[in-house]
Amino acid sequence: MDPAPLPSSHGDRDLASEARPLRSWNDGAVKQALLAFVDAVTSEGADTCVPPEHRVAIFDNDGTLWTEQPFYSQGLFVFDRIRALAAEHPEWKTQRPFQAVLEAGAGMPHGLSEHDVGALVAATHAGMTTDAFDRISREWLATARHPRFHRRYTECVYQPMLELLALLRARGFTSYIVSGGGIDFLRAFCEEVYAIPPARVVGSSSQVRFELHDGRPVLIKLPELGSIDDGPGKPVNIHLHIGKRPILTFGNSDGDLQMLQYASVSELPHLELLLHHDDAEREYAYDRVSLAGRLDEALREAGPRKWTVVSMKRDWKEVFGRHPATTSPGTSIH
Amino acid sequence: MDPAPLPSSHGDRDLASEARPLRSWNDGAVKQALLAFVDAVTSEGADTCVPPEHRVAIFDNDGTLWTEQPFYSQGLFVFDRIRALAAEHPEWKTQRPFQAVLEAGAGMPHGLSEHDVGALVAATHAGMTTDAFDRISREWLATARHPRFHRRYTECVYQPMLELLALLRARGFTSYIVSGGGIDFLRAFCEEVYAIPPARVVGSSSQVRFELHDGRPVLIKLPELGSIDDGPGKPVNIHLHIGKRPILTFGNSDGDLQMLQYASVSELPHLELLLHHDDAEREYAYDRVSLAGRLDEALREAGPRKWTVVSMKRDWKEVFGRHPATTSPGTSIH
Ligand SMILES: [Ca+2]
Ligand SMILES: [Ca+2]
Repeated sequence: MDPAPLPSSHGDRDLASEARPLRSWNDGAVKQALLAFVDAVTSEGADTCVPPEHRVAIFDNDGTLWTEQPFYSQGLFVFDRIRALAAEHPEWKTQRPFQAVLEAGAGMPHGLSEHDVGALVAATHAGMTTDAFDRISREWLATARHPRFHRRYTECVYQPMLELLALLRARGFTSYIVSGGGIDFLRAFCEEVYAIPPARVVGSSSQVRFELHDGRPVLIKLPELGSIDDGPGKPVNIHLHIGKRPILTFGNSDGDLQMLQYASVSELPHLELLLHHDDAEREYAYDRVSLAGRLDEALREAGPRKWTVVSMKRDWKEVFGRHPATTSPGTSIH
Repeated sequence: MDPAPLPSSHGDRDLASEARPLRSWNDGAVKQALLAFVDAVTSEGADTCVPPEHRVAIFDNDGTLWTEQPFYSQGLFVFDRIRALAAEHPEWKTQRPFQAVLEAGAGMPHGLSEHDVGALVAATHAGMTTDAFDRISREWLATARHPRFHRRYTECVYQPMLELLALLRARGFTSYIVSGGGIDFLRAFCEEVYAIPPARVVGSSSQVRFELHDGRPVLIKLPELGSIDDGPGKPVNIHLHIGKRPILTFGNSDGDLQMLQYASVSELPHLELLLHHDDAEREYAYDRVSLAGRLDEALREAGPRKWTVVSMKRDWKEVFGRHPATTSPGTSIH
């Protein structure tokens, strides 16, 4: 719960330059649409102006604000935790699904079912206080490195998106994260990395129980699922946590389909965007077939619903901020 | 979801007068403690200063911000809705618990079990879109009158508390409602009456389902319970929705016990308060025995935990703002 130092991914960059907003975006229709929309809804006196209290912007996280390949960062955190906890659990060596993780070494375990994933999440996320989980998450984020880019995961955030968040902040928007990731994991970095405080982070959650330990209140994370903030769960949680329709909504996968549909019927001016990962050179290229961030139905609906499709390759001048050089190009795991 | 006009309870009053903050509070230890705390945590450079992003204040609603006698306003809304819907449901005349409500006329139905209340809430809150429920709630709030004070329920908010909310706003706090009331009902008035937007309103909730009706996305309120934001549910929801411990926490009943306990162990300077209803002349006098807002355990724990007990009779110069005169004094239903 307490603020802890975390490497900042934006502090050293000139994100909010009003003279050159979105400078890591290439000139073109998409950048033009973004700037025109922000101008339209923030120009006082214009018919299209939206009062600040309704300037709600919503961002998916995995694959929209940071990279989600070769797999969701939180999934890689789970695998790392299983390996770290294995010494205390000798039985895991021969017990599914732990065995699959341990036998994969530093690689990706194969053949995990949805039920397996639930068991791995429960073994690594439950049975501890929310404070303890926060510490464990922050330690991992401070030390773990992305397998291809060899930098912290919090340094695998997209520079053009940080610039968009900064532009919206400067123009009176209130931005929220609405992610399929775990809410407690997200909160371990979203304030420092995106300048989005915990109260504006919505994610999946397990159930939590209040307990007094020697008179001291604690919150215990339980293995039972609370809410899955994905697909139809996103508009449901937008209503529960935010209570207003967004006017700018940014996603990248079919998990964002219902959230984008929900945003599309706002009576206020609104803009919906989908990031298309088509850049195997600088990041990854994937859509209909991918372990993480499958994009199929939402891409087909983008045309009829008038959603703006952002091409990473075409629309972004740079993908990541200035960090240690990347290694050779790679593709996603299919 | 869209802003609708609602009678403002604060627009016409000089709430935020920095020259005379908390002017409806009597001089004394409680007012002094409030002002000293706000000064301490907002004085830049002082050891006790708390950065704005941690100036989180949390308010219970029923009995803390507005009156909860003779019964919770939302309960009275439920009874009114049952009466309004009775013509469409002739079977209710002989069906428990609806019969009890209809036979009570404009009075309080007797002998309702917790299960009965659940059935009444489901019959009046579920099976419609969130937008439809919002309209129904706003209509009721605009027209219904408090049985004793003969004014809208939104005019039965406490003037001293509006002044405290205004003071905190002026001093860089972010205030939240954390109420046992239904989140969708609360949001129908909290922004207009307290200047607290939907995203900062936490309450009890039913489950909600996303549906497409002829391609148009809607959220349907379901009869199944989501979260009970009362007792131990309050700190759980504070964690889920806000993600930080409050530094100022204000409640009035045993339903706030765990929230106050949770706040009490903050590592930052913090203040917890309990409003004690001891003013039958101007409002109501009740604590250990009451249909609404029972206060027993929390009052006993106030001493050892160093919570500030606010006496309505002693500490408040006025209770309500200037509105049509009240009728004769009354007491609560026991
Ligand atoms: Ca995503
Ligand atoms: Ca209360």
